[in-house]
Amino acid sequence: MIDRLSALLGPAHVLTGKDAEAYGWDWGHGYFAQPLAVVRPASTAEVSAVVRLADETGTPVIPLSGRTGLAGGGQGEGALVISLERMNRIREIRPGARSAVVEAGVVLARLHEAVGEHDLIFPLMFGARGSAMIGGCLATNAGGSNVLRYGNTRDLVLGIEAVLPNGEVVDLLQDLHKNNSGYDLRHLLIGSEGTLGIITAAVVRLRPQPGAYATAMLGMDSLAPALGLLNRVQQATGGAVEAFEYMPGSYIADYLALHPEGRAPFEQSHPVNILIEIGALAPRDCTPGPDGVVPIAGYLEEVLGEMLEAGEITDAVIAGTGAQRAALWAIREAASEIAAQRHPMSILDVAVPLDRVGDFLTRADDVLASLDPGAGTSVVAHLGDGNVHYTIFPSSKDPMEKDRLVEAIEDVVADLRGAFSAEHGVGTHKLNTMARRKDPGALTAMRAIKAALDPKGIMNPGKLLPPQ
Amino acid sequence: MIDRLSALLGPAHVLTGKDAEAYGWDWGHGYFAQPLAVVRPASTAEVSAVVRLADETGTPVIPLSGRTGLAGGGQGEGALVISLERMNRIREIRPGARSAVVEAGVVLARLHEAVGEHDLIFPLMFGARGSAMIGGCLATNAGGSNVLRYGNTRDLVLGIEAVLPNGEVVDLLQDLHKNNSGYDLRHLLIGSEGTLGIITAAVVRLRPQPGAYATAMLGMDSLAPALGLLNRVQQATGGAVEAFEYMPGSYIADYLALHPEGRAPFEQSHPVNILIEIGALAPRDCTPGPDGVVPIAGYLEEVLGEMLEAGEITDAVIAGTGAQRAALWAIREAASEIAAQRHPMSILDVAVPLDRVGDFLTRADDVLASLDPGAGTSVVAHLGDGNVHYTIFPSSKDPMEKDRLVEAIEDVVADLRGAFSAEHGVGTHKLNTMARRKDPGALTAMRAIKAALDPKGIMNPGKLLPPQ
Repeated sequence: MIDRLSALLGPAHVLTGKDAEAYGWDWGHGYFAQPLAVVRPASTAEVSAVVRLADETGTPVIPLSGRTGLAGGGQGEGALVISLERMNRIREIRPGARSAVVEAGVVLARLHEAVGEHDLIFPLMFGARGSAMIGGCLATNAGGSNVLRYGNTRDLVLGIEAVLPNGEVVDLLQDLHKNNSGYDLRHLLIGSEGTLGIITAAVVRLRPQPGAYATAMLGMDSLAPALGLLNRVQQATGGAVEAFEYMPGSYIADYLALHPEGRAPFEQSHPVNILIEIGALAPRDCTPGPDGVVPIAGYLEEVLGEMLEAGEITDAVIAGTGAQRAALWAIREAASEIAAQRHPMSILDVAVPLDRVGDFLTRADDVLASLDPGAGTSVVAHLGDGNVHYTIFPSSKDPMEKDRLVEAIEDVVADLRGAFSAEHGVGTHKLNTMARRKDPGALTAMRAIKAALDPKGIMNPGKLLPPQ
Repeated sequence: MIDRLSALLGPAHVLTGKDAEAYGWDWGHGYFAQPLAVVRPASTAEVSAVVRLADETGTPVIPLSGRTGLAGGGQGEGALVISLERMNRIREIRPGARSAVVEAGVVLARLHEAVGEHDLIFPLMFGARGSAMIGGCLATNAGGSNVLRYGNTRDLVLGIEAVLPNGEVVDLLQDLHKNNSGYDLRHLLIGSEGTLGIITAAVVRLRPQPGAYATAMLGMDSLAPALGLLNRVQQATGGAVEAFEYMPGSYIADYLALHPEGRAPFEQSHPVNILIEIGALAPRDCTPGPDGVVPIAGYLEEVLGEMLEAGEITDAVIAGTGAQRAALWAIREAASEIAAQRHPMSILDVAVPLDRVGDFLTRADDVLASLDPGAGTSVVAHLGDGNVHYTIFPSSKDPMEKDRLVEAIEDVVADLRGAFSAEHGVGTHKLNTMARRKDPGALTAMRAIKAALDPKGIMNPGKLLPPQ
């Protein structure tokens, strides 16, 4: 096998033993699985050749790109790892059409930079952007902080190129905004976590770079008015809200404990803190007035002033400089670091309808307090899209006890018609939950699709679909 | 069979013979197929019961809703037609969350009205909105005139409920903006033209009603500057363009010949006419000034003035009243009527990359002129999303000759990496094209998915997938 792989790709791009080890670690969770080998193809044809060989020999395959996944979707003992890192070309940027053709191994931040030169953005934005690659973003349908304005990864993709489990290349690399010619395989492959094929390239949508941002932190006593507040700011700004992030007072306290050099957003702490960011597109909203203030910041100030007066919010601070904006975002982006401070822990990455986030938090806190009064939590939410990262720290080290707490909180999610995985995916971590919670008919249909497209079960086996 | 159906639904909702005939006609193309029977279930449970019976007896099933499809996807001799017309409840409107839960039989225009009462829109907009129903919109992933701002139907749907070919109900009726819990069956079923299951209800996204519109017709000598023009107006208005529709001078002439009471947009005719509409959301853009003009119209006037001065456009007229706006749209919405004036005809519903529409038109015209100098055309395009409706009127009545012309124009589409079906779908009309043009690996994957989910092949058989 190794010889045949070397013949296909050259020995320099077939790693085994110690050389392959780095690809076997899940850094976030600290466990390891030794790959059979790691191959680094440089083209779609090479990916196809490797997958054909895997198909012929019945070898399990794991596609990997930036290795920043949070659901354990990228490890497997004795599997052939196909690293997309050398497929790192931005094939084309088409500013007029607002699109780009990129390969799976392009690092997200590099794409941000490249399109920025054309005053355009690729609006997928999350903490791991300096390592995460396009292939993994698509395979997991990555979310992040700007979903409320721009959608999830799938909403930013016009076309894909992929290698199916039999090694066949599917060319759906279209730069089209309408295409009703059969089942949407693009959307089927996006978010399939590498279990139905390997996405090798994509046509992505670009958007104009906002000409100005206005960023503020709001202090409030309760989450109840938050959705009304979001809708009012959307109304006042013509739908310009880019991010609407929730952090409870305890999260701010945890941040300051971890970062003594950090700045508290307010002199007094507030139970509810919301980071809001607005991106203005029209020139009239972006051009600073005689006072140096951009109009969009003026509109935000106005609506926040009204809310302060009406008692709907308690406090508000608007970032006056880029440094102040960065300081506010630094608080929000410390979430993973804060969650990783204590063990055992479990991050529940859930979504609920926009008007039920407050309800979810109250009920989850109650459930946790009743089952494990000594448990701790760290909570942060992409409030504008209903996605809560609810991290629990059980008082017991017993994994069964942790599972019991997770299940009880998932009961609340199910009762509110939420999702047990909002943006991190299923991987291996959520397999039990998938078996317990997913609509049974949907699960049966997914198994049928998997068996139809990957009859030998070689493509990222053991991920996404629980064993029967 | 009829007895068992009657037992399930009551005899009043099982139509046969003459009573079933109306459901067997394709009005647009004037052909007929007699259904075995037409059933009208009133609930998802009833749809499920009927499909279970069809599965048990191996009876082919055709789901039907508003019967406005243009691709022949709703007829089949001897098939059991399941009409969704009685599943016509708007189950819930949730203004805070900007969503609604609607059943498959709700007429699109009725949903528009109902959400309008909350100052919200469901932004799917096309000519047949007074008859088309939600179920068909989803099954065909309907497009229309506002796709450039709001996306296709699939982009407006958060969750679905569906009955699979074995009769099982899948409940994915979620009001969630993030949900990474397995393969996206919602996107697989949307656009599958009833061949993988019957969508019975959906959670749809609502958007704020623009507070003001500005609508203009532009006259130009050539299509070349159009994309630059769109991007400039988007830039000037902060991305507020709702529609950007192209009509050549010959289309305007055809309209006026058909509607002597209609008004020409310009005194002189222009080779290129573009209908542009902007929808303003922010109050500052919507509130009329002392002169009674809303600011958004002022911005449009300003940018058009600059373009006139620079010679980028030849002429422009801005609608000053609602009646003038309606008159401009009346021209655009006469497209089907104009295309239906001559026979034989064939509507090529194609999409190309945004920056290749002009190239497509030039090349298609050349190909047609060389193959059939006596042929006519009627052309209209959703220019902002790259979708051209290129209707040909061959000089010969020989269907083989028509096919030859269609194939030659499809060669141009393929060469430009376009789609042979942009928004109308495949149905039965485009089966040959699907067989000829679709990526072979994609076609194989689609067949595998169809066989996996509908092993007996009872669900809208003979549609979308060409025979092998």
